[in-house]
Amino acid sequence: MNEFEFINQYLKPSNERDDTLLLGIGDDAATLKLNTHQFWHISTDMLIADRHFFSNESPENIAYKSLAVNFSDMAAMGAWPKWLLLSVAFPQLDKDWLDIFFNTFNQVLASYHVKLIGGDTTQGPITTLNITIIGESDRLGLQRNDAQIGDDIWVTGQIGLAAAALYHHWDKINLHEDEFKICEQARVHPTIRVDFMFQARNLIHAAQDISDGLLQDLGHILTASQVGAKVNLETIPSIQALKKYEYYNDWVLNGGDDYEIIFTAPKNNQEKLVSLAREASVPLHKIGEVTKNTECILMCNDKIVSYSKKGFDHFEEETTVY
Amino acid sequence: MNEFEFINQYLKPSNERDDTLLLGIGDDAATLKLNTHQFWHISTDMLIADRHFFSNESPENIAYKSLAVNFSDMAAMGAWPKWLLLSVAFPQLDKDWLDIFFNTFNQVLASYHVKLIGGDTTQGPITTLNITIIGESDRLGLQRNDAQIGDDIWVTGQIGLAAAALYHHWDKINLHEDEFKICEQARVHPTIRVDFMFQARNLIHAAQDISDGLLQDLGHILTASQVGAKVNLETIPSIQALKKYEYYNDWVLNGGDDYEIIFTAPKNNQEKLVSLAREASVPLHKIGEVTKNTECILMCNDKIVSYSKKGFDHFEEETTVY
Repeated sequence: MNEFEFINQYLKPSNERDDTLLLGIGDDAATLKLNTHQFWHISTDMLIADRHFFSNESPENIAYKSLAVNFSDMAAMGAWPKWLLLSVAFPQLDKDWLDIFFNTFNQVLASYHVKLIGGDTTQGPITTLNITIIGESDRLGLQRNDAQIGDDIWVTGQIGLAAAALYHHWDKINLHEDEFKICEQARVHPTIRVDFMFQARNLIHAAQDISDGLLQDLGHILTASQVGAKVNLETIPSIQALKKYEYYNDWVLNGGDDYEIIFTAPKNNQEKLVSLAREASVPLHKIGEVTKNTECILMCNDKIVSYSKKGFDHFEEETTVY
Repeated sequence: MNEFEFINQYLKPSNERDDTLLLGIGDDAATLKLNTHQFWHISTDMLIADRHFFSNESPENIAYKSLAVNFSDMAAMGAWPKWLLLSVAFPQLDKDWLDIFFNTFNQVLASYHVKLIGGDTTQGPITTLNITIIGESDRLGLQRNDAQIGDDIWVTGQIGLAAAALYHHWDKINLHEDEFKICEQARVHPTIRVDFMFQARNLIHAAQDISDGLLQDLGHILTASQVGAKVNLETIPSIQALKKYEYYNDWVLNGGDDYEIIFTAPKNNQEKLVSLAREASVPLHKIGEVTKNTECILMCNDKIVSYSKKGFDHFEEETTVY
């Protein structure tokens, strides 16, 4: 049994809806309708040392990353984060470590005007963080099942950098010093896309954050929307210098840990999206389009290429940090 | 640094309020106001194997207990649980275990019409559950700081049974077979007090669930309300057969893990409360009263007795399961 079979078998069956619960399990967040112009989006994420971050990672990095991971769910819903609950388990309470952790944690919260409204703390054998985040918007969240045939497929930021940094950590490759610096920065400090996605929410059909790998996360949109896609490998934004490495395709197609947003939007909205991205200084690239055929076809230099490796599954990969 | 210093230093400073956030960190749940007659109460709890339950505990027991712990926060707010998010980490996904776990989990949710609206799953070295629960009521939740001088102090159910069962598990004592059966049932299957507390919410001033020990949890109410109390040891409801054990006072005063509710209410409401409890078949006992003096005075046979042991702290006790 893998992670997605687990979700389908045990979590999704309870996925009823009602007048308030407009969207339950199976998207980046659930959506609760307060009234006709106020919607709350809520999601939860657990991060465990040596799984989602290295145990010896700096407390700044762990604090920032744990928030970025959760904020990206809000970005993918086109929601603005408002409230947050934090549960933590530590082997012991180390004041120096905690001072630094909460300094960063509270700085990030403050910069988005997000309030910590609940928490729990306990002792555990390994550092474990669980964040529940609630965001707000004036509409139903950007859902995975809203991709329309003919939509352009867009990606924010650059893809594959975090995965390249991890491969370096795992000694699978040896990045040049300046390459590693850029990739490591992307891994520990993914840019939060909340502002852009909130502003662009009415220009977008379907959206999803890229946590498990671009192809797998795009796959969630395609499956939910019952459509296919044609993706141009050479248009996926990354770093030129990484292309020389044998793992490049793995990194950009399956790397995961990017916490960028992949979304589909009507062709007519291209100009507005590009303009909005330029104003917000957000790198935005079109990587393909949504098709009627329910397959995801990968193109390279106008030829169909095959690519079989799957994206990340928390219970199947051998890797220890992701 | 202990658990409460941690909460005070790192979590509470961000405890601002606004027109929507009426109550932040520091109570059983935060309260968000949707409109004048609709309030949502939200809280989060992390449970870790060998800390909050035995690793070899049955999946039914773990499922039930993880929900009871969270429902008791809603009961203590006088709120009705509505939505729930579940994050889980397991060493591996064991289908047989999960089938039983989710069978119980979903049965309990269904019996309260609570919907699972979000989740996360990952691999971790030890079974870890994090639940975030959202409840609803037509008023501000029952807060810890609302105890009034002259209020009666009430306790639901029976206290100290779970602690006695734990002492038996730890081989600190040897309960008789029939005593252990009753105490173990209280430990693994604490009765959920949501119904009674929701019905009684307008008769009550301050409330708190008893998770860390009666004296410590009452202490939270007294400190927050800047009042004191006189508690009669012999009126604390427990099992007669337990009184012969040397640890009896520890169990009822500091045992914790009871997940019963301690609350204060105006003397005038006694009749209504007793009548409501009788209708709902909820054992309800008056154990003392709120005083102007800010101390908590413990009485036994009309004499003041001193009792020094503190309640449970997740980072200070040597015990491994609580």
